Amino acid sequence: MHHQRTQAYTQRIQKVLEWMQAEKIDAVVFHDTEEHRTASMRYLCGHPMDALFIIKRDGRSVLIPWDVHMAEAHASADLIVPQSEFGRDPAAALQNMLADLGPGARIELPSATPHPFVSSLQNRLCQQEIICREQGIAEHLLTLRMIKDEEETALYEKACTETDAVLDALLNNWENFTSETDAALAIEGMGRTRGAEKTGFETIVAGPARSWGIHAFPSYGPGPLQVRGLTIIDFGLVFQGYTSDITATVARGPLSGRQRDMISLVTEAHERACALLKPGTMTRDIAAAVHRFFSDHGRTMPHSLGHGIGLDIHEYPFLRDKTEGNTQLRPGMVLTIEPGLYDPEEGGVRLENDYLITPEGHRRLTNSRILSIR
Amino acid sequence: MHHQRTQAYTQRIQKVLEWMQAEKIDAVVFHDTEEHRTASMRYLCGHPMDALFIIKRDGRSVLIPWDVHMAEAHASADLIVPQSEFGRDPAAALQNMLADLGPGARIELPSATPHPFVSSLQNRLCQQEIICREQGIAEHLLTLRMIKDEEETALYEKACTETDAVLDALLNNWENFTSETDAALAIEGMGRTRGAEKTGFETIVAGPARSWGIHAFPSYGPGPLQVRGLTIIDFGLVFQGYTSDITATVARGPLSGRQRDMISLVTEAHERACALLKPGTMTRDIAAAVHRFFSDHGRTMPHSLGHGIGLDIHEYPFLRDKTEGNTQLRPGMVLTIEPGLYDPEEGGVRLENDYLITPEGHRRLTNSRILSIR
Repeated sequence: MHHQRTQAYTQRIQKVLEWMQAEKIDAVVFHDTEEHRTASMRYLCGHPMDALFIIKRDGRSVLIPWDVHMAEAHASADLIVPQSEFGRDPAAALQNMLADLGPGARIELPSATPHPFVSSLQNRLCQQEIICREQGIAEHLLTLRMIKDEEETALYEKACTETDAVLDALLNNWENFTSETDAALAIEGMGRTRGAEKTGFETIVAGPARSWGIHAFPSYGPGPLQVRGLTIIDFGLVFQGYTSDITATVARGPLSGRQRDMISLVTEAHERACALLKPGTMTRDIAAAVHRFFSDHGRTMPHSLGHGIGLDIHEYPFLRDKTEGNTQLRPGMVLTIEPGLYDPEEGGVRLENDYLITPEGHRRLTNSRILSIR
Repeated sequence: MHHQRTQAYTQRIQKVLEWMQAEKIDAVVFHDTEEHRTASMRYLCGHPMDALFIIKRDGRSVLIPWDVHMAEAHASADLIVPQSEFGRDPAAALQNMLADLGPGARIELPSATPHPFVSSLQNRLCQQEIICREQGIAEHLLTLRMIKDEEETALYEKACTETDAVLDALLNNWENFTSETDAALAIEGMGRTRGAEKTGFETIVAGPARSWGIHAFPSYGPGPLQVRGLTIIDFGLVFQGYTSDITATVARGPLSGRQRDMISLVTEAHERACALLKPGTMTRDIAAAVHRFFSDHGRTMPHSLGHGIGLDIHEYPFLRDKTEGNTQLRPGMVLTIEPGLYDPEEGGVRLENDYLITPEGHRRLTNSRILSIR
């Protein structure tokens, strides 16, 4: 375990302990499974997946992994106990590891915990209080993760530089990619060659026949690329768990007037949003400005303007014009801006770049763009 | 919408209605999100992702999708209402669409539903009864999905034939693949070229330095393949939502005595399991036989023996030696057998094939193997 990394985990757990004290919580539990990933576990101890992770009020941490070899290679925890010791039954593992907290202890589970699991734990630990709420420990972790530290920022510089290099290699040789699959596999291959752990989500390459979908399904296929119209390319690269997220559009002419309009509206929306990216701005105001801009031109953007990125692809802050989740921008946030317009007849245009909020305003981390080919 | 497909959805919904009547349930709700996929939604209406789906006691179905264009292209439902009509708030959407059931109605949510969402819905629909339990509607759907119909079986024949073709192309040209990434991208590319919707899960190619991990992390990387030792290759191909799942091992000699032992034990374990694959056998007995065989030879298999496959990669029946989930094999089940042994010094060996249970016994659908290279 790299020393600097271990120190980061210690600092993060310290912040959780402060929150626990303020909320009078005696233990918090994180549960990462194949059915529901919990990136906060990796954030707090480095273990990448498939485990229970507990922090107790005295600062001790317990990791209960499925693969104990993986834990030894990646995790920082005071105690590591394989799940097999509890018959692979997570409720039994928690009952066993939390009994020492005594009667009346308040144990909090993340808001995504399934209802029957909460009920079952309430029965098994009937002398303790099981808490599972919105705006609890999971959301507090998302708030902590929202402000990236120096190591995380350095990781983002790296992830975004590599992402740009992959996009450049793709767009500079665009004519060589005959199908969506060609282009998507080139992204996978170049990303891994450049050291990415994986791609951040299912890479989307949606050619002119399918780019009307916000998230095309399937995400890529045999469809041709070297035909008239709009192609959307949406991908991210993961370095040490942190993902980038960019979208480029390739517009092969001749285009219709409506397609040209969509391109210039999305380009201008992107610039308008960027102009507002600085500490103090409220996320809702940025999103509202872009939605209003589109609606002033008779258009509707059917998704939110952007989102924080990190160990998850969608993190705080969310750039939405709805009332929930209005957040003031602060230095250290890393987020995407991704205006897009979609039309069943004309196809789709989306432009997405990643930004770091700095004390002075922002730094653009990626250089995605709309490529026009005559 | 293909007529035969629509008919299959109608039949499936009919079975859900029978269950609802027996359980005195007035509506069931499925919720597929990026955070938690719910393949039963696709099973019942064809819509691939990101939606709420409701079946009411009178047989009417309602789909509330994020992307309404996608619903029009893929879904079969009596009513389609975009999520945006409810401010993208799923609880509000349910409140609105379930109000007509009247007071006292019993509404069931799948067991994976987060606890706070259940509480919130209980508050909003306070005159109705919100039910969320283990062994409820989600598990009933898994039981229905466990027995594949003719169309699904035909899909599996196709998916497995293509999976074999990809594996053959890989193993017959093994010397050409220098890194894990090379091999994994070849699988992705060949799979898509052969019409797969995508791969079924993160493809694993773990070379001799990393094959000790049950699920290597990262799942592939720059590591070399053409070196002494054991390489694990684990992948699946998805056709119309249904995934295959196979694992091959490449053993490049000279091998240690322990490595040769691991190979012959895993090979024999696989054969012993297959000999038991016929209607009437209990899954626990098959798993217990294999675990016992390994332990008689001083070895431990750190995972279960196999699992059903379908729209999810892990479905009923589970082949485990623990008490939960003991299932009698029946014709129409499609499952994998995947014995494996792992050693931090020697690496890992796993052999996984897919089987259809038939009235006469079983049919092996894939031809995965352990390739020995001198």
